[in-house]
Amino acid sequence: MRTLLACLFAVIGMSFASAQNAPSTNLNLMPWPAKLQTGTGQLMITSPFSVAFTGHSEPRLQRAADRAVSTLSVQTGIPLQTSAGEASKATLVIHVDHASAEVQKLGEDESYQLQVTPTQVHLSAPNPLGVIRGLQTFLQLVQLTPTGFAAPAVQVDDSPRFPWRGLMLDVCRHWQPIEVVYRTLDGMEAVKMNVFHWHLSENQGFRIESKKFPKLQEMGSDGDYYTQAQVKQVIEYARDRGIRVVPEFDMPGHTTAWFVGYPELASAPGPYTIERGWGVFDPAMDPTRDETYKFLEGFIGEMAGLFPDNFFHIGGDEVNGKQWNANPKIQAFMKSHNLKSDDELQAYFNKRVQAIVDKNHKTMIGWDEILNPDLPKSIVIQSWRGPKSLAAAAQQGYRGLLSSGYYLDLMQSAEQHYAVDPLTGPSANLSPEETKRILGGESCMWTEWVSPENVDNRIWPRNAAIAERLWSPADIHDINSMYARMYVVSDRIAWLGLKHQSNPWKMLQRLSQGEQVPSVKVLADAVEPVKGYEREQTQKYTQFTPLNRLVDSTHPESQVGRTFADLTNSLLAGKATAADKAQLRSILTAWRDNDARLQPVFQTSFLLTEVAPASHDLAALGSAGLQALDYLDQHSPSPESWRAEQLTLIEQASKPRGEVALVGVPSIRKMVEATGQASTATSSPAFK
Amino acid sequence: MRTLLACLFAVIGMSFASAQNAPSTNLNLMPWPAKLQTGTGQLMITSPFSVAFTGHSEPRLQRAADRAVSTLSVQTGIPLQTSAGEASKATLVIHVDHASAEVQKLGEDESYQLQVTPTQVHLSAPNPLGVIRGLQTFLQLVQLTPTGFAAPAVQVDDSPRFPWRGLMLDVCRHWQPIEVVYRTLDGMEAVKMNVFHWHLSENQGFRIESKKFPKLQEMGSDGDYYTQAQVKQVIEYARDRGIRVVPEFDMPGHTTAWFVGYPELASAPGPYTIERGWGVFDPAMDPTRDETYKFLEGFIGEMAGLFPDNFFHIGGDEVNGKQWNANPKIQAFMKSHNLKSDDELQAYFNKRVQAIVDKNHKTMIGWDEILNPDLPKSIVIQSWRGPKSLAAAAQQGYRGLLSSGYYLDLMQSAEQHYAVDPLTGPSANLSPEETKRILGGESCMWTEWVSPENVDNRIWPRNAAIAERLWSPADIHDINSMYARMYVVSDRIAWLGLKHQSNPWKMLQRLSQGEQVPSVKVLADAVEPVKGYEREQTQKYTQFTPLNRLVDSTHPESQVGRTFADLTNSLLAGKATAADKAQLRSILTAWRDNDARLQPVFQTSFLLTEVAPASHDLAALGSAGLQALDYLDQHSPSPESWRAEQLTLIEQASKPRGEVALVGVPSIRKMVEATGQASTATSSPAFK
Repeated sequence: MRTLLACLFAVIGMSFASAQNAPSTNLNLMPWPAKLQTGTGQLMITSPFSVAFTGHSEPRLQRAADRAVSTLSVQTGIPLQTSAGEASKATLVIHVDHASAEVQKLGEDESYQLQVTPTQVHLSAPNPLGVIRGLQTFLQLVQLTPTGFAAPAVQVDDSPRFPWRGLMLDVCRHWQPIEVVYRTLDGMEAVKMNVFHWHLSENQGFRIESKKFPKLQEMGSDGDYYTQAQVKQVIEYARDRGIRVVPEFDMPGHTTAWFVGYPELASAPGPYTIERGWGVFDPAMDPTRDETYKFLEGFIGEMAGLFPDNFFHIGGDEVNGKQWNANPKIQAFMKSHNLKSDDELQAYFNKRVQAIVDKNHKTMIGWDEILNPDLPKSIVIQSWRGPKSLAAAAQQGYRGLLSSGYYLDLMQSAEQHYAVDPLTGPSANLSPEETKRILGGESCMWTEWVSPENVDNRIWPRNAAIAERLWSPADIHDINSMYARMYVVSDRIAWLGLKHQSNPWKMLQRLSQGEQVPSVKVLADAVEPVKGYEREQTQKYTQFTPLNRLVDSTHPESQVGRTFADLTNSLLAGKATAADKAQLRSILTAWRDNDARLQPVFQTSFLLTEVAPASHDLAALGSAGLQALDYLDQHSPSPESWRAEQLTLIEQASKPRGEVALVGVPSIRKMVEATGQASTATSSPAFK
Repeated sequence: MRTLLACLFAVIGMSFASAQNAPSTNLNLMPWPAKLQTGTGQLMITSPFSVAFTGHSEPRLQRAADRAVSTLSVQTGIPLQTSAGEASKATLVIHVDHASAEVQKLGEDESYQLQVTPTQVHLSAPNPLGVIRGLQTFLQLVQLTPTGFAAPAVQVDDSPRFPWRGLMLDVCRHWQPIEVVYRTLDGMEAVKMNVFHWHLSENQGFRIESKKFPKLQEMGSDGDYYTQAQVKQVIEYARDRGIRVVPEFDMPGHTTAWFVGYPELASAPGPYTIERGWGVFDPAMDPTRDETYKFLEGFIGEMAGLFPDNFFHIGGDEVNGKQWNANPKIQAFMKSHNLKSDDELQAYFNKRVQAIVDKNHKTMIGWDEILNPDLPKSIVIQSWRGPKSLAAAAQQGYRGLLSSGYYLDLMQSAEQHYAVDPLTGPSANLSPEETKRILGGESCMWTEWVSPENVDNRIWPRNAAIAERLWSPADIHDINSMYARMYVVSDRIAWLGLKHQSNPWKMLQRLSQGEQVPSVKVLADAVEPVKGYEREQTQKYTQFTPLNRLVDSTHPESQVGRTFADLTNSLLAGKATAADKAQLRSILTAWRDNDARLQPVFQTSFLLTEVAPASHDLAALGSAGLQALDYLDQHSPSPESWRAEQLTLIEQASKPRGEVALVGVPSIRKMVEATGQASTATSSPAFK
């Protein structure tokens, strides 16, 4: 019911706010609030910075305020002295009506009101969750001004569009140490995400301590697992940040690592070893033996006691059925139970698992494969194969989450993720009642090609765009504004200790180990990793394959690439200013000249050999672009032979090498093609 | 006696090794080993990487090897699987003769032999300390090659020149959280330093928990202190890295923070508050009351139990005597005890403190003010006011350490620190017996203008040059080789988690908060903080003054500045190649053009306003330099009026603004002056 109200509120809020709600570019808020009105003047950030509380109080609120002041100190470099102040005089006054639930609930009120005046900040919320959200908004408001660090006077009235705004982290395919989890939670708090979905077991590793079944982690993890004490600390840390922790134990497939210690759970005889490669594998639990459920009763009982959240994720994806089909006993069981397909057998399994989850007072959630009318309507479907399953689940009465379109491992642009909305596409035509069943979404960080070293860079800053999609009103969708704010958020979360900026730099240092790192960076900034699952095609990867190449060190989305594409579009639309054209020339010149500087590095670094041809082609692209600019400047069409030659070069440059692709290709192709039509160029206002 | 032998060995080793000991520039070892012979071939770093132990074994050795393999994994990006191997087949074979002392001793053997062949690494040492040192040498040998990561075949026979190679960290003036201590120890291990001198009490803060006298930390630290549990962990962590931890409790001066909780210790009535500013202050312990010594007996007893090291530092510096002179009781005491001066009163105090330290089975160490013939010859003198006191102490039979010349807070160049040798200057003429009393030295990181954010940048990489001076043979002193290796070490310790590279970048982001960070960096790289104690003159600083300005964000020594000076010298000596001249022009062009790009930032960032004139002058310097190059290229003398005009500009540019100074000034002055003598330029071989 809370959810119902929250959704209704969001919808009403949206239409009310839409007129005045176009993001103002000089405020770097992300996610953009539901409602914001700017005022006059600003609050200067100075020391001492006193905080007063009124209404409900609890230690978590004090910790939240202390954390915010400490972050403010990091942002500004001012050693802020804090003290408890009287409400009438304190810099920041926080009012809370009542406590939040002991265990944070889905749909719990996260709204807050924030008022900044030149003398005080007032933050009020029904419960501590709103304070946690509002403090982040306040921190984002603080900016560098000609007179000092200051927050502009504003009135914010904010609440989320969706109640479930999560990030899933796969800590199995590549082990992610506990520090990665903590910094991910720090980043999530900054962008108001509220669910950490912890993918804890896989073919490639069982990553949590079970006291009941210790062979799970002892034999299934290479020693890389979280202790229960660590998990409890993570849960507390997350709760302080208004983040629920939902564990996932993927079953009946994706379970090879379980079978190393407990082969009797499998549908084919062991022994098993930890899977090292990537893909869909045959091992699956035997859904026909009572012993399997007895084990799961013990295990789920243990984990349900450890994780307080009301939801329990059982995975359920990608069972290929091969072990089931090859096992005569399982075949006989299916026949005797009238189960006509692997899907029906899995539904049988899910039903029995659901009963165990239910007995532990938890709500089951699973990937969209678990959708089956035999399961109760209380379960939640996480849609990963496409938005259709989300709409289908809602129509069948199930609540659902969208993850399709939010897969961070696919190396898509922030813009692409930002365009994905849980309520558009197949969900656009749902009835109001069905719409209410769409709880939100989750970004997913699968880690086939993601190490602890580059995981931050794979998540951030793109995840901030997804966080905004899930929090802000649907009509907040200006791409340029989103990017401008996203890159500010990126810098700010780097100050919190996230390593999406610093680690890539170290990785570039590793690639060259000399003074040529800036030149390596020019190349790195001019490429993007290949998209989707293309890396599966190029070579056989395992857990042991070094992820130390250029493709691993560069950002999923090239900022230079986007700037270059925008400038090219302006140019060809005749809207480029002189400064735009100078910037285009500057980028192209850097590309053209970089290869020569990298030549000595290619001689010494085996890691860069594979991208030497890409560097060579980047130089060719730079030259082609510069010549194209000359033709356009001279308002004379280029010779057809020149264009043909350039287009051949560009075609050559479009092929990925070393699993990276040059980002300038489409724009330079357009530029070269445009030189054939001198009239277009001549007619542009910028050339008049 | 061990010390005696170690010193003798070092002296013999030096003369033996000197012929073959010129650092080979393709090996990035720092400190350079006493003896090194290169071999043929290289050992490729691949997974699995097995380690075998022979001889003495203990858990610390296993931890050291695990740590090295983990660092190797970070360096190479290869997920190295490790296993215990048979000695005949293991990648790395470690042999240790016997255990080291339970509590690491001054002068304990740190020697090791390291042999790398294309198939194996053999590391042997008399005790674990040598293994800890040798592992770092091995890690530094590993480099990027055209075929993979590899260590070249070498034979290293290494031991330190001095037995005391320390770093002092002041955690009082600006509190340095425990993470800073840990990363400092990581850096020290990498460059083979072996003493962490922990400056724990000051006027501005008492930074360690006393259980006997809890008001020390409760009232004297603002809550910023280390618990005893934390201290024990630090000591263990340091021991694992072959680093002794020597605590310092500065007395009888520098003690204001003690008096906040215990005013009865002072020589003037309280109450006292924590000192917030910098300088030499009046408060001093009352050396005439028995209660003072009773307190110190309790306190030193407690701390001597906590810190296992044999040495105990009592400070002893900068007592101005004002409180003593103003206190009639103290004056009466001096008369009755025939103490004729403040110095004699302090010597009386030191004698009584020494007796307490001695009773706790510790050796007293203090700053050079404590040097007094009344004290036993066992004490150690740390020379900070100049090298004279070190020689004087040695002549009087005292052991000593050099810190004068190694003050990292004075913003000197690595070259300046590197030139300081404990055995040159006044110590050069000591007898062999006196020379043996010189134990080594310590770099000092005082923190008046150093926050946890920039402390890494203030220590590193310059501290690596001091570490080399104290470890390597005296005849290793080539400056270019030192810088080349130092900057490689700098990158490598950044991979260990030190923040001397990443934090300055974040600080530059804070200064502009936009896309102009690279332009801010051009300015930041073209300046250095003012030197020595000049910041004392420009404004009144306290603990609460933000250290968030350009002066705080830039490196103490500009790498661009050094390159530019070298290139200018080559040019004016007629030795510049075409590439050198192109690089000069490129730097000058960047300087000339940067100011225009920064103009919008100066409009918005109050933090950069103070350096806007410096940026303007940088542009003028760039233009002057480019024109000077033109004159030199044209082999025609410049007009005198032009030179006069430029020299006026340069004079103007030489003044510090915002506490930073432009590094290009001296070189550009030389260049401009050289344009008056066209003959010089014309006669240069590079112009022929």
